[in-house]
Amino acid sequence: MAEPTPLHALETPCLLLDKAILRANVARMQVHLGGLGVSLRPHLKTAKSLDVARMAMASPAGPAIVSTLREAEYFAAGGVRDMIYGVGIAPAKLPRVAAIRAGGTDLAVILDSLDQAEAVAAHARASGDAVPVLIEVDADGHRSGVAPGDRDTLVAIGRALTEGGATLRGVLLHAGDSYSLSDPDALAAAAEDERVAAVTAAEILRAAGLSCPVVSVGSTPTAQFARDLTGITEVRAGVFMFGDLFQSGIGAVAVADIAVSVLATVIGHQRAKGWIIVDAGWMALSRDRGTARQAVDQGYGLVCDLAGRPYPDLVVRDANQEHGIVAVRPGAEARLPDLPVGAQVRILPNHACATGAQHDRYHVLDADNRVAAVWPRINGW
Amino acid sequence: MAEPTPLHALETPCLLLDKAILRANVARMQVHLGGLGVSLRPHLKTAKSLDVARMAMASPAGPAIVSTLREAEYFAAGGVRDMIYGVGIAPAKLPRVAAIRAGGTDLAVILDSLDQAEAVAAHARASGDAVPVLIEVDADGHRSGVAPGDRDTLVAIGRALTEGGATLRGVLLHAGDSYSLSDPDALAAAAEDERVAAVTAAEILRAAGLSCPVVSVGSTPTAQFARDLTGITEVRAGVFMFGDLFQSGIGAVAVADIAVSVLATVIGHQRAKGWIIVDAGWMALSRDRGTARQAVDQGYGLVCDLAGRPYPDLVVRDANQEHGIVAVRPGAEARLPDLPVGAQVRILPNHACATGAQHDRYHVLDADNRVAAVWPRINGW
Repeated sequence: MAEPTPLHALETPCLLLDKAILRANVARMQVHLGGLGVSLRPHLKTAKSLDVARMAMASPAGPAIVSTLREAEYFAAGGVRDMIYGVGIAPAKLPRVAAIRAGGTDLAVILDSLDQAEAVAAHARASGDAVPVLIEVDADGHRSGVAPGDRDTLVAIGRALTEGGATLRGVLLHAGDSYSLSDPDALAAAAEDERVAAVTAAEILRAAGLSCPVVSVGSTPTAQFARDLTGITEVRAGVFMFGDLFQSGIGAVAVADIAVSVLATVIGHQRAKGWIIVDAGWMALSRDRGTARQAVDQGYGLVCDLAGRPYPDLVVRDANQEHGIVAVRPGAEARLPDLPVGAQVRILPNHACATGAQHDRYHVLDADNRVAAVWPRINGW
Repeated sequence: MAEPTPLHALETPCLLLDKAILRANVARMQVHLGGLGVSLRPHLKTAKSLDVARMAMASPAGPAIVSTLREAEYFAAGGVRDMIYGVGIAPAKLPRVAAIRAGGTDLAVILDSLDQAEAVAAHARASGDAVPVLIEVDADGHRSGVAPGDRDTLVAIGRALTEGGATLRGVLLHAGDSYSLSDPDALAAAAEDERVAAVTAAEILRAAGLSCPVVSVGSTPTAQFARDLTGITEVRAGVFMFGDLFQSGIGAVAVADIAVSVLATVIGHQRAKGWIIVDAGWMALSRDRGTARQAVDQGYGLVCDLAGRPYPDLVVRDANQEHGIVAVRPGAEARLPDLPVGAQVRILPNHACATGAQHDRYHVLDADNRVAAVWPRINGW
């Protein structure tokens, strides 16, 4: 666009992205990981935007990781040539993987069972394409993965892949349980546990004569708090780019470093109750209430002025589909700001991945909090 | 499409819609409300689909109610001529309202303050279009609205509208607190409270010499449990069309009458923990955990076989962005079904509005659980 658009000219609710904060968040993580001698493979599942991806990736060709094949297709079409599809592969999805690979993108898949390994190997033989595979290893009992010391399963999967016609590229872990922590030492310990689990699994494969060039770990909190990454070749993280209140509750980002917010308009008041009603409900903010389990419950989001400065203790206390009920945090004594019908506010989200998914574009802010660009984002599968 | 598509040919996760159940749900509500002498104004915020709307509305021209101007524009383009935009109007949105009205759709707005009424009246005078307005009245302290007995505010708004050049069409209430109930008598009492509040506000306006042709109430639970609607002209409800586990927890729909489900594929197991991992996480199911506050917590959804029959006590116990962790409900003794990698399941959602919003289309099932059509749906604002 030629002239930047002021916020008051936007239709609400809509999603804002502060480009300078995004850039600083990316630079900070790159410097941190560079200092630990590993590269960053940004997770594109938070942003789902080629414009954002290009700011976060080492080069326009990648590397990157994605959470859906729709993302893989979209980013491949945008020139990303090195990707991992980071959700355990279902055999029925291999034809879509093959089509992306046939287009010139080195798309790897992950798996954690012999059944899957045999299916990928059969596909590799039938297609003549030695699909690269990372074995998902369980860092902390959080979700999926082979136990890091389960030599029999690791080696059986590795052999099924290599002897079956696929490529064993390495191991991949995600320390998802780090999301429940907030103490820096505990987070550093979680990062170390993730590292040790990864190296243990890689060494098991190598001891069995299998190659394991890639040793991939990652989550925003463990990436942030890792102090030593010996034996690790790459770190994956995504939400750090945008930050959110949940990551702030963990201690992984500062509130001032949250790059995304939802612009909303005041549409009513219930003065006797101390409520301001805004036109951003859970449809615009998402249903994510992750901060309810943290020390500071942010409701459905923290309310800021148009410059992005939080009002003291002002949160979205409850949300219906298209209504947010803004009020002072329970127990706090802050004064309700004077926000008449028609006034706009910015709301910091609990969870950038979930809030982003409710929108199809970013309104990208310049240094004067005007919209200098509109970047599309994708959703779906 | 020429030939129906079997479920195993679909990319997962995706949204399924059982057309026969939808049709029966609509017919049941129409018969119920017809028996009480009122018409149904279906809320299209759940489905956001013209195909679904045409099954629910009395005619292709409406009436209907929507939650966003994007919906209003979409349904107006599809021929709906009688709509209410059911979220308190922000003055900055009046130009979009005017454009929809200029296209031949009778779009009414709602408000609950004198400031808004004066803004709408000023717009009406400037544009020469006597925009129809319903005054939002607070049925139960749930969200927005003028208190039903607040004569001064009701009459001041009514006069500001009628004397200012807009049209006072009536009053509108939504008994949102009914969502916290589950006892049929309490629900019937909530419906009666909603009715009395509506009639009280309408009578105040009429006693002041103001016209109030429309007296509109509604929520799926109160619509379902209302026993007398004397003085009411129309009932609004939306989620009843699809049903969901939350409405089932209230007692407003049976689990067998839930028309929407998410098709998912098994992508892994953690056998020692009794977990089955599927490719439907919160991105496909939504972050809605409304059933956590009900007597039966359904996790992120109730897991069914491909015919839509629930497995005993099998729920999505936890969810990450693209992973669902399926397990037997805490405390239950059911056996985990044998679902190998690649097997498909159907997951009934907690909240049809929230789950629907994560998708851009419905895969419409015929009587044999094959996909006979694909219906688009919209999102955004």
